[in-house]
This record gives sequence, structure tokens and C-alpha cells, in this order.
Amino acid sequence: MTASLLDNHPLPVAARERSPLARDYARVRGHSLALAGPLSAEDQCVQSMPDASPTKWHLAHTSWFFEAFVLQPHAPGYRAFDPRFGHLFNSYYEALGPRHERPRRGLLTRPSQTEVLAYRRHVDDAMHTLMAAGAMESQPALQTLVVLGLQHEQQHQELLLTDILHAFWCNPLLPAYEAVEPPMLRLAQPREPIRWLAHAGGIEHVGHDGEGFAFDNETPRHAVLLQPFEIADRLVTCGEYAAFIADGGYRRASLWLSDGWALVQQQGWQAPAYWLQGDDPRLGPGRDAAMWHVFGLGGAHPMDPLTPVTQLSLYEAAAYAEWAGARLPTEFEWEAASRAHGTRLRQQTGHAWQWTRSSYDPYPGFRALPGAVGEYNGKFMVGQVVLRGGSLATPEGHARPTYRNFFPPAARWQFSGLRLARDSTSC
Amino acid sequence: MTASLLDNHPLPVAARERSPLARDYARVRGHSLALAGPLSAEDQCVQSMPDASPTKWHLAHTSWFFEAFVLQPHAPGYRAFDPRFGHLFNSYYEALGPRHERPRRGLLTRPSQTEVLAYRRHVDDAMHTLMAAGAMESQPALQTLVVLGLQHEQQHQELLLTDILHAFWCNPLLPAYEAVEPPMLRLAQPREPIRWLAHAGGIEHVGHDGEGFAFDNETPRHAVLLQPFEIADRLVTCGEYAAFIADGGYRRASLWLSDGWALVQQQGWQAPAYWLQGDDPRLGPGRDAAMWHVFGLGGAHPMDPLTPVTQLSLYEAAAYAEWAGARLPTEFEWEAASRAHGTRLRQQTGHAWQWTRSSYDPYPGFRALPGAVGEYNGKFMVGQVVLRGGSLATPEGHARPTYRNFFPPAARWQFSGLRLARDSTSC
Amino acid sequence: MTASLLDNHPLPVAARERSPLARDYARVRGHSLALAGPLSAEDQCVQSMPDASPTKWHLAHTSWFFEAFVLQPHAPGYRAFDPRFGHLFNSYYEALGPRHERPRRGLLTRPSQTEVLAYRRHVDDAMHTLMAAGAMESQPALQTLVVLGLQHEQQHQELLLTDILHAFWCNPLLPAYEAVEPPMLRLAQPREPIRWLAHAGGIEHVGHDGEGFAFDNETPRHAVLLQPFEIADRLVTCGEYAAFIADGGYRRASLWLSDGWALVQQQGWQAPAYWLQGDDPRLGPGRDAAMWHVFGLGGAHPMDPLTPVTQLSLYEAAAYAEWAGARLPTEFEWEAASRAHGTRLRQQTGHAWQWTRSSYDPYPGFRALPGAVGEYNGKFMVGQVVLRGGSLATPEGHARPTYRNFFPPAARWQFSGLRLARDSTSC
Amino acid sequence: MTASLLDNHPLPVAARERSPLARDYARVRGHSLALAGPLSAEDQCVQSMPDASPTKWHLAHTSWFFEAFVLQPHAPGYRAFDPRFGHLFNSYYEALGPRHERPRRGLLTRPSQTEVLAYRRHVDDAMHTLMAAGAMESQPALQTLVVLGLQHEQQHQELLLTDILHAFWCNPLLPAYEAVEPPMLRLAQPREPIRWLAHAGGIEHVGHDGEGFAFDNETPRHAVLLQPFEIADRLVTCGEYAAFIADGGYRRASLWLSDGWALVQQQGWQAPAYWLQGDDPRLGPGRDAAMWHVFGLGGAHPMDPLTPVTQLSLYEAAAYAEWAGARLPTEFEWEAASRAHGTRLRQQTGHAWQWTRSSYDPYPGFRALPGAVGEYNGKFMVGQVVLRGGSLATPEGHARPTYRNFFPPAARWQFSGLRLARDSTSC
Repeated sequence: MTASLLDNHPLPVAARERSPLARDYARVRGHSLALAGPLSAEDQCVQSMPDASPTKWHLAHTSWFFEAFVLQPHAPGYRAFDPRFGHLFNSYYEALGPRHERPRRGLLTRPSQTEVLAYRRHVDDAMHTLMAAGAMESQPALQTLVVLGLQHEQQHQELLLTDILHAFWCNPLLPAYEAVEPPMLRLAQPREPIRWLAHAGGIEHVGHDGEGFAFDNETPRHAVLLQPFEIADRLVTCGEYAAFIADGGYRRASLWLSDGWALVQQQGWQAPAYWLQGDDPRLGPGRDAAMWHVFGLGGAHPMDPLTPVTQLSLYEAAAYAEWAGARLPTEFEWEAASRAHGTRLRQQTGHAWQWTRSSYDPYPGFRALPGAVGEYNGKFMVGQVVLRGGSLATPEGHARPTYRNFFPPAARWQFSGLRLARDSTSC
Repeated sequence: MTASLLDNHPLPVAARERSPLARDYARVRGHSLALAGPLSAEDQCVQSMPDASPTKWHLAHTSWFFEAFVLQPHAPGYRAFDPRFGHLFNSYYEALGPRHERPRRGLLTRPSQTEVLAYRRHVDDAMHTLMAAGAMESQPALQTLVVLGLQHEQQHQELLLTDILHAFWCNPLLPAYEAVEPPMLRLAQPREPIRWLAHAGGIEHVGHDGEGFAFDNETPRHAVLLQPFEIADRLVTCGEYAAFIADGGYRRASLWLSDGWALVQQQGWQAPAYWLQGDDPRLGPGRDAAMWHVFGLGGAHPMDPLTPVTQLSLYEAAAYAEWAGARLPTEFEWEAASRAHGTRLRQQTGHAWQWTRSSYDPYPGFRALPGAVGEYNGKFMVGQVVLRGGSLATPEGHARPTYRNFFPPAARWQFSGLRLARDSTSC
Repeated sequence: MTASLLDNHPLPVAARERSPLARDYARVRGHSLALAGPLSAEDQCVQSMPDASPTKWHLAHTSWFFEAFVLQPHAPGYRAFDPRFGHLFNSYYEALGPRHERPRRGLLTRPSQTEVLAYRRHVDDAMHTLMAAGAMESQPALQTLVVLGLQHEQQHQELLLTDILHAFWCNPLLPAYEAVEPPMLRLAQPREPIRWLAHAGGIEHVGHDGEGFAFDNETPRHAVLLQPFEIADRLVTCGEYAAFIADGGYRRASLWLSDGWALVQQQGWQAPAYWLQGDDPRLGPGRDAAMWHVFGLGGAHPMDPLTPVTQLSLYEAAAYAEWAGARLPTEFEWEAASRAHGTRLRQQTGHAWQWTRSSYDPYPGFRALPGAVGEYNGKFMVGQVVLRGGSLATPEGHARPTYRNFFPPAARWQFSGLRLARDSTSC
Repeated sequence: MTASLLDNHPLPVAARERSPLARDYARVRGHSLALAGPLSAEDQCVQSMPDASPTKWHLAHTSWFFEAFVLQPHAPGYRAFDPRFGHLFNSYYEALGPRHERPRRGLLTRPSQTEVLAYRRHVDDAMHTLMAAGAMESQPALQTLVVLGLQHEQQHQELLLTDILHAFWCNPLLPAYEAVEPPMLRLAQPREPIRWLAHAGGIEHVGHDGEGFAFDNETPRHAVLLQPFEIADRLVTCGEYAAFIADGGYRRASLWLSDGWALVQQQGWQAPAYWLQGDDPRLGPGRDAAMWHVFGLGGAHPMDPLTPVTQLSLYEAAAYAEWAGARLPTEFEWEAASRAHGTRLRQQTGHAWQWTRSSYDPYPGFRALPGAVGEYNGKFMVGQVVLRGGSLATPEGHARPTYRNFFPPAARWQFSGLRLARDSTSC
């Protein structure tokens, strides 16, 4: 297990004697509450589309995960906080019974946010009791479940942010989640060219190697054969993407995958999901009408041409790459480049998930985990596309080079951008 | 103007000197807040279907009505609380500019419930200032607008209840709006037969006669020619309706209007909207599985066979009447019977709106009010059906015998029931 | 029974000895085939929207009507042509069992058009045998069923035309049903003003009086009380309607009923259903780009400003009337004016059905026919609007002043236009 | 280029002198007509769902392909048969202008089937003139376009059959396309076990090697690294699939991919697309109610347990494999096994396309063809799954081991089945 999942929350004094796992537990769980901090009870209840969930639901569901997979099967005498919560807060585990319909999560004004916090405390108390009793040391499989629960919660921490951002985007008042946008590494200079990092191809081993935590979809580690390729040392910026728009990128069918072009026309896409023209009435008066604005966690602000572009669908990422005379990397090229080039492959994480040109298929020899937890990843392995890296909303320490994030190609509400690749010209 | 719109709220001492209109204003506006009282901020934000609105939106929209129609045109120096609120809280007045889309009202977590209350106070202060300045006395048209705003708010008071009830119905926890269901007049004895009140037909005058407030759709008062008919002295009860269900009412196409039968099959209707079988998991253990339960403002409770049935569509009301060998009254029969029989026509209001067999068409010579307020009623006069009477959710004093409530025939989330009628056998 | 339903088809010699009813039967049935004449087997199979039916289906369904209601119950020894056809060609009679889904009628490439013609002959032979046997004379109820079947077939003759016209409208080649558009009575001069025909109001009797055939929905005849009104002596013309368009009629919300305005925006309505701008690519080169064109049974042609406008929804008719400072007549005003003014009320039929401002509600004392045939009209009496008169596609002799045609207010594929009315100014 | 594409049509005498390409052209084009032979003009016009096209449209579109890509750019003096046909019969080539909407192809009763045949002759005459003029010999790129057009037509020959089969499936009469079902290789004995063919894995070269025709999506040929695996020597049979059904295969969520399980529930899937229970009313009387029946080109017949199962979605294929303790092969395993085992890998083609567990992604270094024809394959490379092999509807000579067929995972109207694979146990 990784030594520490999150280091950005101070420990309460009383927790000094806790085991490393219990400290990780406390940190991760506390971080979820911290993320919900700027949000009112009303904000925490809203669901702005079927794919997004309310903050409160995230807080409850991640607690239910520990209750359903750890406490109820493994904690002697544990009593569920409310037996009806399994129905409300199960996400998609068929093996654990029927569920409240996903698109109707926003209707759950009850239980209240206060009750959900009590639910979290109830689960946390039982978890700490279980961990303090030494159950983990004697049962490695149980410890693995707890770590899975924490990694699961970290995934929901990112979703909590992307989902509330979508909800705020649907509000004509364009509320800001926080006063200041999280900083993104900007390019040092406006016209800094891409540096292409070369890889000679050949046999590479990809997937998780067994040390530290990984999701089942990263296994088994296996060999793949790559062609020589080059990959950009940095992400595509908002400024570069604006040039694509200005050059008619959203009006030229020849740049687009067929399903993407259909969406461009049906939905009237003209820019990434949260971009606004400067004369949009939601921005209020006094803006430069000719300037793109971008809505983010810190509210709407003028587009910064030097930061990575986000809120792209796979279709937009691929169309941009086509326009730029390049292509998207495969997920294995990305992973091989990460190992080969280390920090020279800049902006690997902390900015934007990076669409790859790899559909989300199972690795050779893939086996889902046994039991209900086996539904975690495997059953989604069709119709989705892999993203690699990590975003500004990904909790620190959560991502790794073998990590396989995945979304349908039309998804735009994530912090999803792109890094270019191309075939090696000298081969 | 009516002397008093609502008498069930005590007056604050400081308001003793207010004009009758100002006292009415204070009472009506206070009643909206009282209705929102049992609801958390989360509850007040939710929208469970496009036809329903959040409580918070009702509170804000009714304030916007005074702001847009009274204060901004008529109160010198009035400053809007927030110029963006017109966009958010205009309901359907095309003449007043674009609006936030109706199905997305539930996404407005901001402005918060607290801000909406501040908005109400801002409007109330300005209204009281305007009324105290004697503007009403010198401008009867202005006074009419204020009264219209109060009547409008009373309509939203009923919707506030029906809409939150629908939201709670969508929650598997089936929360209760209030601890005790509002009392409904029950029949004195289980098998009390309907008494048929006869009317000889002939020329009757219907519509509002000019004294006291009425909506424009109740005018002009005009003569109609009725055939002899009989009308039931009371509403159809839950017990009677359960007999219709037990007799296969929802499985016999011959009883139904065509559009209604299509809905029965598409939606799987088997009972009124909020009825549950006793073994429904939402009811929890310990219920009589063979007994219908009804969800209402007081939560779920065993069906009371002696109370009026509600939550019916026009289709269900008409199918029941067909099954019972009777029919629905026309809106003019209802109105004539109300005048002719007075209190012998029991349960006219306070229990359930009563579907009539009259489509919602304009009266001869109908003219909508001039200006934006003319959109109030007239533009909805097609595709809807008239209900007469008043329900347990109708504010006291709001209904009158000439009142024309209207909903599409498929609507089931209102407190809508029925009263039988039939052609006179002896004519 | 009317002496003759249709006189425009010559009698075959062998039919000289037939009874008047049998001669009517032969004429009406022959007219359906004549209407299908210009259409290929392919044309006769297509269904361009759920509300429209293929020609072949009309030909088969009208035969099934005689088979199901006359031959099977009343013709001794009758054998169904194909027992599976009841499933395919029942339209909406629940009492007669399950049916092929309405929106999928166009998928029935089998039975072929040839087989459907054989089906018609099979039914016709049996019907003539039955009629020749004198069954009608001894059984008036049976004779009524046959007449109903013929009236039913005439209704489908009109639908056959409106449905194929819609299908051809959906074809970018804009095929013409026939070489020459059926003539419509044009105004004598371009600017001929409307003459307003006055009616003093008072008690009028409306509905069918018992002589000759009428549908059940025209009964019972009953007295109504009318206010004084005036009605236009002619229909609104294309030229007048074009002025409404040019004056921004489709861009001014204040003219429209709410549901209609929503459709204008959702569907992008800018003109009646089959109007095209002169530069529409479907018209091909050489047209005057500034001139409206109208697609009709004779194909696309320049709009004739002197002919009645058709292909209007109720919403458009009502918006035009509002724009013109008038209103639509009620169905009773229309009927009373027809009786009072006779031919001075020009263009009553033969041009366009005329939207009224009356929802399609049952008459006082209305009773549907007993048995399955009772589903003919009654079960549609909600959510629809009455049209009076008759159109260029209505078979000769089919319409009468008490006739109540009805369609949902959004329907545009019929030959539906309007005649203005207004309250009497001098009363 | 392959020496001959199709050998099953006799040559007309006059064509004896034609070049091999011209003879291939004549054979392929003639085969399309032969396939349309059993269908009436009505049958050829129908479109039963947006993904399917009418026979007539297939016949016209394949002609348009030659007109648009060969004749108009390359045949001097060629005159289009009808300039409007480009709009009607372009399928999805954005570079060639706007198109008739795909879901409305069934509305094109005009041009008639007769006109479409004349269109084919017009194109064929021009093509033969062009080929006779020796244009191909001097322009290899032009020859490649002609061959592409023939391969394209062969793809539509398969679709013509699958599309009309779907249309007939939607007809309650269940018409047969032909009197006798095309023979499928049956297993020699009822319980013949699968023989597992082993492959040691390692580096394999996949993709087209440059000899003979291939589509661009089969290139570039490249090396892949395979793990050791085993593959079934035959397809899964209807009898085996029926055992899966009987064992609750359609009721056990744990066997299914998530999107597949959602479809099972939404669509009520209980068996492959064209299976019927013996008591289905469409089968008529006299069937064994307990026996599955299968609808195919020869009509409905009792399920033959020894023939390959078809009409499966990817979801069903994958669920079956999971139930059987196996998995689907990847497309590269399939291709490697085809090369390694030759005819021991039975039923490679001629029976059913075989779903693989490979999403349809571009090969490393893939480049679409230049110009409009580059839209042929590349723009569909996301959201689809690869099938390998070939079906009973695939024209003889059309398939090859590198062929990549692809459909969305939910597609069921193709002749799509499966072959099992598994990881090598001894490695």
C-alpha cells in the first residue's frame, strides 16, 4: 500500500496514535468535507444532468461504499445507519440490489445534508474502531478493500468538483466555487513551441507492476509492441485552441470523426464546453466582447492563452490534432513516454486529463475482482475512451502513469484536454 | 375589492395602522412564508418535473410579479433588488423578455433561499411604502394590480404545496410535509349514498358579476342555456374509487377516452397518482399488504375510504364516471348548481378541485387585460380542461363559484377529484 | 338515408338493377380506387409520419370496416379474406382486439397493393351479395351500418389525399399527385374586402335534426344561446396571410396562444406548412426568389394571393385572427350563420376546413353508438378543436352544416384554413 | 487486384470481350439486381429503422458511388442521370455536399424502382464505355476507384439482405425473402464439443500485406505482440445459446457489460433479435409452443440447435462468453489464428460475423485515403467494435482474414455471432 494518500490535511491530536492506514483514512475522508465546504446545502443537493451527481450524494455514496463492502461484511455487530440508504446511495452495483435511479439523485432533498454528515461520522467511527482493533493487520484482503474505498473516494472528490462546476455552469448567475481559480502551470512565453520527445518504439511493458495500489483495470502488466513515435512535451493551450476555432475548426467536417461532427451540428458546439464570448449576457457589462472567457472553479475569467485547454470531448481533441497535422497518442505511447522521459514530459498531471486514441478495452488476461466489487471497472469496458494523466481536480497522490481514466467520447464536463503525438518522421 | 383575502394570520402590532389592502398584502405574503416553513433550504430548491417549480422559485417569482408589474412601473425611485432576477423569475411573460428555461428552475441553487427571503423583504418594504403613500387610493388600476398580485400569490401557494408533494413522492423515503394530514370532511357513514340535486335547466347567467375580484377568464358574465341535469351532492370518495379499481377500471378500454387509455398503458397507471399498495417497499414493514395507502402532505397513510379521492387526471375522472353510469358536469352546470343549491352542494371547496367536462375556451366577448399582464390567462385557452371548486391546498377565501381553474387532461399532481352528474331522467 | 352519396362515377351496366344503397356503395368504393389511381405501389405503401397512413392501408382499412362491422356479424357464411388482416387493418377499435401499431403502418410492404385490391373485391362481392339478398330492407340497423361504412370511407378518401400530400412534401423531388391542381374559387378581385354578415344572437338550435345521415357527435340537436356576432362572408386568402407573415406575424409572441408560440420556436415555423420561398433548392432554378410558392396536389406553384390559405394549425389561424383585429367563430356561430345566410356565407365547403374557437366537447346528452362502433367519435372528445365546413379534398356530398370535423390544434397537414368572426359592434 | 470478385453469375454473350475488370463489374452489379429480384417495388422502398436503408436506395447509392467518384471526375462528357440524385443518394460524404436525411430514406417513393433501374443502366453504360476506352490501364488510381466501388457495392449487397430481413421482421406476416433458407454448415453431431486451437502468442504481423484489394482500415500491416491463447474451432450454436437462455442468461446482471445490461432491461431482450417463442401469434397455429423459432431469409422455422447463432449484439456475445467461462478473441488473435490454423479454424466465413473484444481503433500509422473517399472508414473509428470473418450474406470472395467489419455494440440486425477464446492455461 502507498505510504500516504494525501498530505494536505493536518491531523487532529487525538489521531496521533492511529495506524498509517487510519491516518490515510482520516485525511482522505476529511478532504471530501473540505471540498464540500464552499457549498451550501442547496448547492450540495443539485444534479444538473444524469451523468453528474449531487455533492451530498457523493458524500453519502463514498460512505456507503465503506459500509457495504467493509463494515457490514467484516465489522462484528455493525448496525447500518439507516437500512434505506443502501437503496439511495448504491451507485451501480447490481449484486447489491436495486438502486435509486441515477438521473433522480437530485430529488433527494432528504436525507438532508446534516443527516448525510451524521452518516459519514457514523461510518467513520465504525471504521476507526475496526482499524484500531487490528483487523487490517490480520486480514490483508480487508486492508485492500479499505484502500480501494479511499481511492474510490478520491475519484469521487474529482467528480464532486466537475459535477458542481457543471451545475454552476447551468446557472445564469455563473457562481464561483471558490474565490480564486486553482493555479495551472502556464507556459513561460506566449509562443513557446512544442518540443517533440521521441520514442524508438519496440517492446514496452505497460500496466501496473504490483507495488502500491492500482485499480484492476491497470492489470495485468503486459508487453506491447510500439511503433516509433514522438509526443509533445506539453499540453495544447487555450491560445492554440482558440486559433483552431478562429480557423473554422468547428465548421470543417473533414477534421472530425463522424459522431463528433453530428454532435457539433446537433448541439451547436462552437468552443469548449465552458467558453463564453465576451458579450454573453451572463458575464455582465464591461467585458471585452471580442475576447473568449472561460468558466472555471473560480468563476468566469478572460481566457488565458497560456494555460492548457480543458472541457474538451474526445471528438474535439481529435479534430484539433487533425487540424494541427498530428494525432492523439495511444494510451501505451503515453505510458511509455512517461516512463522514458520522466519530467521532460511536462504537465503529466495536475492540469488536464489527456484524451488518448485508445478505446477502453480489457488488458490481456484481465480479471475483475471477485464479488460485487468486481463491478468496479470491468463492466464499463466498451464504448469509452481512455484518458491518461490527471487534472487540477485530481487529488494529490491519486494519479500514476499506469492510471486508466475513461469517459464516453462525447463527455465534456471533465477537466479533459490533450497532448499531441505523431509518427516518427525518421523511421 | 374583497374586504379581506385571508384571515388566518395574526397581524403584527406595527401594522395596525395599515390600510385594508396593506393588511391583506401582509397576510398573503406572510402565508407564503408560513407554507415554506416546514421545508429546508434543500427542499425549497428541488424541481421534480418540468411542470412543477421549486418552493424557492415560487417565493421569488411572486415577489418578482410585484416588482415587475407594480414597483418598477409605478414606484418612483424603486431600485430592483438584483437586475438579473427578472431573467430568473419571470415565468412566462413574453412581453417582459427572455427567461430562464422552465425545466431548469431546480438548478438555481443560487440565489440562496436566504437571498430570496431578502428579496421578498426588499419588495415588501417597497410595497408597503408605496401603499402607505396613498398611491392606491388615487390609482384604482394600480390597486387592481396589487390585488391581482395577491391572488396570483395565492395561486402559487397552492402550487407550492402540490409541487413539493410531487417532489416528496419522488423520494423513496416518502417524507411528510407536515406531521398531520390536513383534515378532509369525511362522509358520516361508510355507505352514504349520493344524493342527486336536480336542476331544471334553462337560461343561466355564468361568469363573474363585477363585485369583488375575479380573473379575466371568468368574464364577461353571460347567459348560457342548460339542459335539465342532476348533480351529486358530494365528491367521489377513495372507497368508491377503490371499487372502480377492483372492478378492473384500469383494464377496460371501453371506459376511457382514447388519449387516457394510451397513458394508462404507456405509464402503467393502476391507481391515482399517489396511491401505493401496502407491500410497497417504500412503506417499510408492518403494513397491511392488501390495503391501499395514500401519500399526502402528512406522509403515507392507509387509504381512508370516506374521504374524497384526489390526484386524478381528467381521464381517470371521466373513466370513473362512465363506470358509475354517470358523467362529469360541465363547468356551467357546476356553477349553476352552486348558485341554486348553496351548501346542499357539499364539498364545493376545501377538498378537491373537480374536473368538469368543459374544455377551457374563452367566454363570449372575452378580452385579455391590456399589456404584459394580459398573458395571465388568455394565452392558455386551448388544450386544457376546466376544474371547478377548490382544494384543501387552496388558500382560504381564494376560490369562488365562478373560478375557472384549468389543467391539461393528463395532469395528476394536483388535488383534483370529481363530482358526478347525469342528465335528468324525468325530462 | 340520403338518396345518393356521390354522383360523380358512372354506373357499370351490370349494376343497373342494384338498389340505391348498392349503387351508393359502388360509387363510394369506386371513388377510393380512383383516388389511388395516380399512385404507384410504392407511393401507396409509404407513411411519412405517425398521424398519416399509407394509401394502401386506407384502402384495406375501409374494407376491413365493412368486413368487421357488417359481413362477419351479419353475412351468413362469410369467410374472412385473411384472418390476419383484422390485426393489420383495425385502426383503433379496442373492442375488436390488438392492432398493428399505428406508426408502423408504413412497414407493411406485404400484403402487396395487388393483394389489397383483391381484398377489396372480396369484400365488395360479399357486400353486393348481402345487399342483393334484401338484408338491408329488413334490417334498418344493418343499413345504417353500411351507410356509416360509406361515410367512413369518404372520410378516409380525404385523409388519403392529405396523407399522400404530406408524404410527397417530405420528398425533395416534390412530386405532384396530379397534373393540375384542383380549382379553388378565387376572389373576383385582388382587394375584395370581407363583407361581414351579422347575426343577432339568441337561442339557436344546433346539431343534426334526424333527417339523413349524421355522425353521432352531431347529436343530440339542442338549443344554444348566442351573443350577437358578425362573420366573414369568405375565407382568409393566401395573399392576406402573406401580409401577416410580412408584418412579422411569426415573430410576435403577443399574437399567439402559448402552446402555439412554443411550436413556432421549436419547429421554426415561418409560414403555412407547405409554403416555400422561391429560392428553395427543391423548386429548382428559374423561380422568382422573392415569391412564396405553395406545394399542393398539383405540385409546387407560385402562391396565388386570391385563393384561400390552407395547411394552417389552429395556432396560426388564431394568431392571424388576432393580428387582423378579429377572432375565430365558435362552432355554433358558424352553424347558425350557415343556416341564416346560406350561400351568402361563401366558400363554406370545397376549399378549406375552417378552424373554430370551440374545443371538441360532447353535446349535452351525447351518447356514443352501442358496441365497438361506439368508439368511432366519442373517445376522442378531449384535446381537439372543431373545424367546420369542408375542403377541396372532401368528397362531394359528404359535408353538411352540422358536420364536426376535429383535429389537435397543432395539426397542419390538413386542408385547414380560417374564416374570421367578431363580436357585434352595435350591441 | 484480385482476378475475379464473383463467379456465380453467367456472362452475357456480348460481354465476352470485356476486360477482367469489366467482367467483375458486370458480375458484381448483376448480383445486386439478383438480390433485389425476390422483392416487389413496395418491398424495395421500405426503411424499417434509421440504421437500415431501402433496397432501392442501396441500388441507387451504389450507382451514385460510381457516378460521383469515377464518372463525374474522370469520364469526359459524362452527364449525370439526374442532378438531384446526388442529394438523394449520397450516404455520408460531407465533402460532396448536403444529403437527404438518413432516417427518411424510406420516404423516397420517387424516384420509382423503375427509374432507379434506369439510373443503374445509365451508370453501367457509361462505366463500360469508360472501361472499354482503356482508361483503367493507363490510370491505376482510377482502376483502384472502380475496384473500391465494387467492394463498396458488395458491402451494400450484405446490407441489402440484413436490411430487408429487418423490415420483414417488423411485418406481423413474417414474409420470407426466399423460399429456402440459405444452408449453413451444421455441426456433424448434436454434442460435438469445441476443439480449442492453441496459439503460442509472440509477435505477429496483422493487417493487409499489399497484394489484392483491401480497405484502408486494414492498413498499415504492422507487428503486434500476443499472449498465448486458445480459440474455438467453430462458432457457438443456437443450441448452446438456448442453454444460456435457459440458464437465466438474460436475467443475471453479473454476466453483462453495463451498457448491455441496461439494454436488456430497457428493451426487454430475452433472446437473439429474431427468435420467437413457439406460441407467438405471428407464427400461426400448429407450432410447438415450447420450441424456439428463428426468423431468417427463408421465413420463420424451428430453431436448429446445430447451426451458428446469429443476430447477437456484442453485449450478448460477451455475456454468453462470460457464462461459458471463456471470452471473445481480440481481432488480432482472430487474425493470427486464421493464418496459423487455416481451415482447422472452421466456419471462418459464410456463417456469421464474429464479434471480437477489440474496439475499432485506427492501426498505427493509419492514413485515410485522400479526398472525399477518405471518409469511407476512418471517420467511424470510435465507439464501434470489430467483427471478423464473414456471414452467409457476405458475397462470395468479398471477405478475407484481414477484413475489419465494425458495428456499434448494440447492433443486432446483422448476421453476427461469436467464436469463443480463452487464455492459454498451460502458459
